[in-house]
Amino acid sequence: MSAPAEKRELEEGVVFAPKFDVNGLIVCVTVEAATREVLMVAYMNRLALDKTIETGFAHYWSRSRQSLWRKGDTSGQTQKVLSLQIDCDQDALLLAVEVGGDGKACHTGRKSCFYRALDPNGALVFTHDGRSPAHDG
Amino acid sequence: MSAPAEKRELEEGVVFAPKFDVNGLIVCVTVEAATREVLMVAYMNRLALDKTIETGFAHYWSRSRQSLWRKGDTSGQTQKVLSLQIDCDQDALLLAVEVGGDGKACHTGRKSCFYRALDPNGALVFTHDGRSPAHDG
Repeated sequence: MSAPAEKRELEEGVVFAPKFDVNGLIVCVTVEAATREVLMVAYMNRLALDKTIETGFAHYWSRSRQSLWRKGDTSGQTQKVLSLQIDCDQDALLLAVEVGGDGKACHTGRKSCFYRALDPNGALVFTHDGRSPAHDG
Repeated sequence: MSAPAEKRELEEGVVFAPKFDVNGLIVCVTVEAATREVLMVAYMNRLALDKTIETGFAHYWSRSRQSLWRKGDTSGQTQKVLSLQIDCDQDALLLAVEVGGDGKACHTGRKSCFYRALDPNGALVFTHDGRSPAHDG
């Protein structure tokens, strides 16, 4: 195929052709299916993606531990995949999930990893269910 | 600081300390503020992030063109930033934006870049506002 034909097929076709980066990874945004709240951003390699599709539960590749990771295996906060979407150029995934256990996706004990926002003074402020350090352990 | 103290500061502190990868980039998930729909996933370098904060409009770094890109400059589909969040380990950003122009974030003419989902047979199906190829052009 010519380059424009390839681009068109990638963007307008029905062939699932995820593009992994030079490290063999693709970025994945995971949202809670019921609320569409963004829970986390993580990475998958081919194996993690295959396992996710095969089992219906989210698997990721841990870049820090360099290992396959079935979300919730130790915490109980599994992620049942309700839909898996891919973006126009097929280099990013979007999972809509139902979270098991206590419903928290972040290893800090919060529902979402995005619990802080930048304020106009350039500092971070804790948002919604992000506990402030003062309330924390 | 010790490694655990550094980790704690990163995760529980109020210092905005985005971690850029070896290519100087940080991944950014952009959602529509009003609906929380995920519009796109893109990347920022330090300059794009600084410009975004300074101007209040989303700037990204185009990996394919290797250039700074103010979203909407050519299309009119600017992204006014209503909030900028960062995740637990500060290596992913989440922007909530108000989209200008016709409200479409994807270069294919769709509102969101995520217009296809994987079906149980392993093919992609067009979802919600994702036009099928049959209706297209």
